[in-house]
Amino acid sequence: MRYSKLLIPTLREDPTEAEVISHRLMMRAGMIRKVSAGIYNFLPVGLRVLSKVAKIVREEMEHAGAQEILMPALQPAELWQETGRWQQYGKELMRLKDRHDRDFCLGPTHEEVITDLVRREVKSYRQLPINLYQIQTKFRDEIRPRFGLMRGREFVMKDAYSFDADLEGAKENYKKMYDAYHKIFSRLGLRFRAVEADTGLIGGSSSHEFMVLAQTGEEGIASCTKCDYAANVERAELKKGAGGRGPGAGEVKGLEKVQTPDKKTVEEVSAFLKATPPQLVKTLLFSADGRPLAVLVRGDHQVNEIKVRRLLGVSDLILADAGKVEAWTGGPSGFSGPVGLKNIEIIGDLSVEVMPESIVGANEKDAHYLHAVPGRDFKVDRFADLRNAVAGDACPRCGAPVSIDRGIEVGHVFMLGTKYSEAMKATFLDSKGEEQFFVMGCYGIGVSRIIAAAIEQNHDEKGIIWPMPIAPFAIHIIPVQDQSERVMITAELIYGSMIRAGIETIIEDRSERAGVKFNDADLLGVPYQVVLGEKNLHEGFVELKNRRTGEKQKVEVEKAIDHLIELVQGPRPQPAS
Amino acid sequence: MRYSKLLIPTLREDPTEAEVISHRLMMRAGMIRKVSAGIYNFLPVGLRVLSKVAKIVREEMEHAGAQEILMPALQPAELWQETGRWQQYGKELMRLKDRHDRDFCLGPTHEEVITDLVRREVKSYRQLPINLYQIQTKFRDEIRPRFGLMRGREFVMKDAYSFDADLEGAKENYKKMYDAYHKIFSRLGLRFRAVEADTGLIGGSSSHEFMVLAQTGEEGIASCTKCDYAANVERAELKKGAGGRGPGAGEVKGLEKVQTPDKKTVEEVSAFLKATPPQLVKTLLFSADGRPLAVLVRGDHQVNEIKVRRLLGVSDLILADAGKVEAWTGGPSGFSGPVGLKNIEIIGDLSVEVMPESIVGANEKDAHYLHAVPGRDFKVDRFADLRNAVAGDACPRCGAPVSIDRGIEVGHVFMLGTKYSEAMKATFLDSKGEEQFFVMGCYGIGVSRIIAAAIEQNHDEKGIIWPMPIAPFAIHIIPVQDQSERVMITAELIYGSMIRAGIETIIEDRSERAGVKFNDADLLGVPYQVVLGEKNLHEGFVELKNRRTGEKQKVEVEKAIDHLIELVQGPRPQPAS
Repeated sequence: MRYSKLLIPTLREDPTEAEVISHRLMMRAGMIRKVSAGIYNFLPVGLRVLSKVAKIVREEMEHAGAQEILMPALQPAELWQETGRWQQYGKELMRLKDRHDRDFCLGPTHEEVITDLVRREVKSYRQLPINLYQIQTKFRDEIRPRFGLMRGREFVMKDAYSFDADLEGAKENYKKMYDAYHKIFSRLGLRFRAVEADTGLIGGSSSHEFMVLAQTGEEGIASCTKCDYAANVERAELKKGAGGRGPGAGEVKGLEKVQTPDKKTVEEVSAFLKATPPQLVKTLLFSADGRPLAVLVRGDHQVNEIKVRRLLGVSDLILADAGKVEAWTGGPSGFSGPVGLKNIEIIGDLSVEVMPESIVGANEKDAHYLHAVPGRDFKVDRFADLRNAVAGDACPRCGAPVSIDRGIEVGHVFMLGTKYSEAMKATFLDSKGEEQFFVMGCYGIGVSRIIAAAIEQNHDEKGIIWPMPIAPFAIHIIPVQDQSERVMITAELIYGSMIRAGIETIIEDRSERAGVKFNDADLLGVPYQVVLGEKNLHEGFVELKNRRTGEKQKVEVEKAIDHLIELVQGPRPQPAS
Repeated sequence: MRYSKLLIPTLREDPTEAEVISHRLMMRAGMIRKVSAGIYNFLPVGLRVLSKVAKIVREEMEHAGAQEILMPALQPAELWQETGRWQQYGKELMRLKDRHDRDFCLGPTHEEVITDLVRREVKSYRQLPINLYQIQTKFRDEIRPRFGLMRGREFVMKDAYSFDADLEGAKENYKKMYDAYHKIFSRLGLRFRAVEADTGLIGGSSSHEFMVLAQTGEEGIASCTKCDYAANVERAELKKGAGGRGPGAGEVKGLEKVQTPDKKTVEEVSAFLKATPPQLVKTLLFSADGRPLAVLVRGDHQVNEIKVRRLLGVSDLILADAGKVEAWTGGPSGFSGPVGLKNIEIIGDLSVEVMPESIVGANEKDAHYLHAVPGRDFKVDRFADLRNAVAGDACPRCGAPVSIDRGIEVGHVFMLGTKYSEAMKATFLDSKGEEQFFVMGCYGIGVSRIIAAAIEQNHDEKGIIWPMPIAPFAIHIIPVQDQSERVMITAELIYGSMIRAGIETIIEDRSERAGVKFNDADLLGVPYQVVLGEKNLHEGFVELKNRRTGEKQKVEVEKAIDHLIELVQGPRPQPAS
């Protein structure tokens, strides 16, 4: 394609509304433009990348035996009422009425529509298993749409739904999708990890999230350094001793109160007492469904409120304000501790249970206790896994230490079981002629979100660095002096040869200063740049720049075309000699 | 693909809700299923055809220099308020509110969004011309959605929008699109005609509709049998004498009243008087913005109310009821005529003007006049083109007779001028640095509707007959005795070879009776069926059936593969000898 014939409105400056790198770079590279909050136009370069992602997803879904269909965005309320989600879904579901005042929604997902289709068209176990997918526009009225394509209100998803005669079959389909997702994200050229998203109501792991690894990711991922275990830090199950016993051992002295004037945070207290955070125990006070609750975690750990809620079966868990802390402990906040607490349920993380001794707040201003020992100096009603995983925790599967990465969720495979088929009375006849509910799975990929995630993972201060499989073009030809006949003829020659070889190539044919051309090229992030300048050409060379490594290489003009083709398509088969 | 692995829920019976052939056949062939009125699931076979249509459209748009983008379905009300269409569009526009109570609509078209994009991103004449298109889901809340994909509420369109610096450029873009549409519909394998949809506010023809020809089409099309003129019968311009002078000439006798007891219709009167309909003049009485109006057309012609309205500049044109006819003419309806009419404006079609004499109603029960002559026996205030074209009318361009076809509108090219750019203040700077409004064109293709139109044009009593370019598969392999090892091995051999040759092939691998297999194959309409039966194989043959012609041919087994490849892909290039 010719640069001048494409709408690529690059921006010099970061747009003020863009908070994250991928959003900034997609705006700056002229890939997308906002229509309304969370709603975007894909411009030509953005759509090229979207199409490439969709193509790879489609190929691997077909390869895994899924059949492509296309369901509508408009969904009648009746179907959602059957599963109860019309009421449950809340404001994220965009609703509207048609001219006859009938209720519809814009699908954020298609479990109801697909289950309705399958219950009408699939009658016998002989027609099973079946896996139907689509690549389609979805709608979700996010309360705070942001980060460009990362969290939009209208976005492109691949969603697949499998239907099986029994759980065993459903697990096979799940495994197929799990494997297909590995192939998809590998082929997209992304570093990613599949993490356990939830563990087994049905037995075994019934849900995995696929995360693209990026420093800027919203999610923390704990991955075993030895086995293939990986989980969201908030969901990783931690066993007793996972975080080690902490420092200190041998003979434990008696409880000792020390002054810690104005030292409130873990860092301040441990520095002041010449200790380390893992020697402290933090005491956090919550109102749990209205009742006072103290949660103890090691100084270097973070309380995981989801785990606390699940343990106690409470729905409202609110951190206590200063007034409540004072009323419940008798001391100001910042100095809370478990010693002497009364009429408060105290729960502790497993890592606290194994600490020989610890430093804790004394429930009075400017005071802490040293050598506090659970059981001896304070009681704990229950010990349980109550915290997020951190680097070095023991893998719950093999015991090796885990490392922590950050990631962006781009895919999710989920075992639905019979949740939807029971709600919608979707049955088939088994081999004995008896009615059975379909056992279902659902499998999503955020097709448009992948673009943002890919950029979060692949960029530098100059712009995007596309992985080849999803790059809008493979080669960017940049004639520096566009007034020079020699430069332009050579550029066009190379361009023509690339097009004939089927290599997606963009040629910079604008009359712009060299600096503008180079900046836009780095911003666009095409993997290889071919720079043609008078001087180099005079010496018989073109310059080949690898956008990722920044490496520049002089290639003889007459060898340039073969070299580029080999670079993109791999070595040509040699004729038999 | 294997038949057993695809969801193709064929139906033996016509579904009761389907009124037209294409809807019936798409339901019966398991291509689509209804979700709600005018809203459908595309099942695997339906989606395959949709994708093929979209691919051809996309290739020709790219070839014509248009750039693909993707705009959102959700559009903010503010943009539609700028053009006034938020108010004008009425109930066909599906509207909704987001969680913050802001108004949105689901786009039935994208003039507002694209004009907003271009006014923000295109600043200079140097960036022009530009043509942006998308293939995307559209929404229109039809009052009576029907005919399956023909008139749905959610459907797939290709819409393109061109922006030019001046009218001359806009005309060039229009011409490019007009030519591209010819290529698209030719490549789709459809018989079609481009018809003038409206004539020149801007000069020249500024709108063309592309019609797929089919007996069942809703629109009538008049096409010249000599030149390339074609127009909707309602819009075709007819010149004086276009319909000939009608029979009768020489000396004209004086007005003569005759009895025509109970003969009211043209057919009844002409049969009774041993005349032909072209010898009669029909007198139709209307209330035109409340005032009485008589319109005269030849007995074999139909009044075109659009032309009448346009001539008189009236908005309300209502056929008079029996009471009004009696009051205005003094006679019962069925016997109206122009002779003796008072206080009524009388207009006549051009073909009436050239009739030497005619038979007309006498404005009294059971009576007509013979030998009525305009001017002599009755007055006509104005003669003008007031009727639909019929077969044999003279082409307004070259004078040769026109023929009449029926068609289904599948594409529309339209010169918008500055309607939207003025309303939305969308300007660029011209070469003199002055602000100018963009001159726009818009170009639509009903991608999903094309499928229905293709079926209306290509079917027989057994099912669909796909044109090869949009067929879901090129070849349908049907092993008759699926218990026979010889039959199945040969079928699989041919299937494997087709797949390796890149030919889209479906193999019938279900355990069904031969009759079921043959019926489903004819219903699905794949262009070539390869039938493998024990008897033929024993004799060394397979049977090749052409779905369109029904022709069956015996092909030697060992030549079958080469023959099929050549049939689909054309002859192989011969190696140089």
